[in-house]
Amino acid sequence: MKKLAVVALGGNALLRGDEKGTIEEQNKNSVDTLKNLVYLIKEGYNLVISHGNGPQVGNILMRNDAGQDAYDIPQMPLDICVADSQGGIAYMIERNLRNILKDEGINKNVVSIVTQVVVDKDDPAFQNPTKRVGKIYTSAQAEDLKAKKGWEFKKSPKGNDAWRRVVPSPKPIEIINESIIRDLVEAGNIVIASGGGGIPVFYDNEKNLQPLEAVIDKDSASSLLAQHIGASELYILTDVPFVYANYGTPEQEILEFLDAKDTRKHIENGTFGEGSMAPKIEAALSFVENGGLKSVITEAKQLEDRSVGTRITKEY
Amino acid sequence: MKKLAVVALGGNALLRGDEKGTIEEQNKNSVDTLKNLVYLIKEGYNLVISHGNGPQVGNILMRNDAGQDAYDIPQMPLDICVADSQGGIAYMIERNLRNILKDEGINKNVVSIVTQVVVDKDDPAFQNPTKRVGKIYTSAQAEDLKAKKGWEFKKSPKGNDAWRRVVPSPKPIEIINESIIRDLVEAGNIVIASGGGGIPVFYDNEKNLQPLEAVIDKDSASSLLAQHIGASELYILTDVPFVYANYGTPEQEILEFLDAKDTRKHIENGTFGEGSMAPKIEAALSFVENGGLKSVITEAKQLEDRSVGTRITKEY
Repeated sequence: MKKLAVVALGGNALLRGDEKGTIEEQNKNSVDTLKNLVYLIKEGYNLVISHGNGPQVGNILMRNDAGQDAYDIPQMPLDICVADSQGGIAYMIERNLRNILKDEGINKNVVSIVTQVVVDKDDPAFQNPTKRVGKIYTSAQAEDLKAKKGWEFKKSPKGNDAWRRVVPSPKPIEIINESIIRDLVEAGNIVIASGGGGIPVFYDNEKNLQPLEAVIDKDSASSLLAQHIGASELYILTDVPFVYANYGTPEQEILEFLDAKDTRKHIENGTFGEGSMAPKIEAALSFVENGGLKSVITEAKQLEDRSVGTRITKEY
Repeated sequence: MKKLAVVALGGNALLRGDEKGTIEEQNKNSVDTLKNLVYLIKEGYNLVISHGNGPQVGNILMRNDAGQDAYDIPQMPLDICVADSQGGIAYMIERNLRNILKDEGINKNVVSIVTQVVVDKDDPAFQNPTKRVGKIYTSAQAEDLKAKKGWEFKKSPKGNDAWRRVVPSPKPIEIINESIIRDLVEAGNIVIASGGGGIPVFYDNEKNLQPLEAVIDKDSASSLLAQHIGASELYILTDVPFVYANYGTPEQEILEFLDAKDTRKHIENGTFGEGSMAPKIEAALSFVENGGLKSVITEAKQLEDRSVGTRITKEY
């Protein structure tokens, strides 16, 4: 058996917040990031690649809004927008990775699966939508959209009268086609799957798959996928080389090695703050608590020097 | 060996020209269409489903335009827009088909592959762009876009000063991941692939896959895929029960059975006019001339009564 790793690319691996979002930027970023995966491939890993879609689906939502205003084109719901973003991003990753593998003389195939992810319709997240999506509205626009579409809004820090739509972020419980993904990767293919946390769906009372207006955390979905396909390692790639305790305070401290117990303690103590790091740690922890050998949180460019990065194992 | 068919869904199978394009319409149309595939599945066919994307990618292009005007969001090139449409449409088909199969008590899995399709960079189509895409512009806007982006335009019949962008429609020569698609369908999965004719790419002189501003005819790509995976039958579903010779003239005539020789003769005589039927016949003919047993051109709802539809075989 070859080693099997799931690599979750952060949104900024493809498009950074300070960029405009052109295709040239996205292509360059994705090539720069993907080149680092060659180190893992050369070490004999089979790979599943998942990815964020924040900036891309944000743009798709804004375009939907603008298209309705300008040309009266009906807006698509969030599940379709996520599915659209999976198509565009997976294609960009697959094409660029094929070219990189060819240049490296590595004979591996790449295949991209449009992936639905199932959540529980009674997930408590539906009572408390937290994930901000789409454009900034004035309070008047937000009131209007709330009345018309039932959307929920929260105040945005980006202005005095700035409101953004919030949607629930329920927990993933099943990755549709996980056995196909496992078979493809075990046969040696690099599989791109579960982009943007997956297209959110749930089973209704008749066991029909129904669409959802929600966003599933991509690291949480990647961790579940890694668990279900029997991966040994989960790489969560982000924009810092290590996880820090008390980041940005005088007590800031690099965390290099963590076992499950210490990780849990840090989570309970709120050491990782409210930002985007806490969900990554939760995903990394869940993986090693459910059969995974090791979770690594680091930057893509640290994959060459495998001694950098926060490594979480069940026990030391 | 089970029988293997490729079914190409026309654009109107998902969204009709007289509809507004809401997700409710698209869901209803796709369910209505997909229910007819159950007849083929119950007869023991393994299926690959391809689909058009005309109305959907048209809307995506318009939204890109509107998003740039309203919010200065960079427009994505055509390859990304096609890839986006593959994600959204394949997901919609997969989810609805899963529910239909469950209702019918059919234990078959469905999987959607983001599909690149390779064309020849020296294809003569690049000298003569014919495929209209995106919104209608005034001549002043068209001149401006031609200067800025190098886009080509042709006059549209829809107005006095109406111009639309035209892109080449080159011939598909390779379906990326065709062997994966074949393996998945031979294992009993229903595979959704090559949507919208595929994401257009070509090999540059260094054998890198590069993106293209082009639209590949979806029936032509479906026919090539059917040939390469060894399908026995190709179903091209459209909005008429039969192909007609001299459609809309006093000489109009239903064509029920055609062999390759007669089909070629009709093509040479221009019997199918200039519309969208000619490329379907070419795709159907190419399939039976390259190992396929039978091509059928008909409406989805005729699949129950298998004696309706234009059936093309190599020989009578």
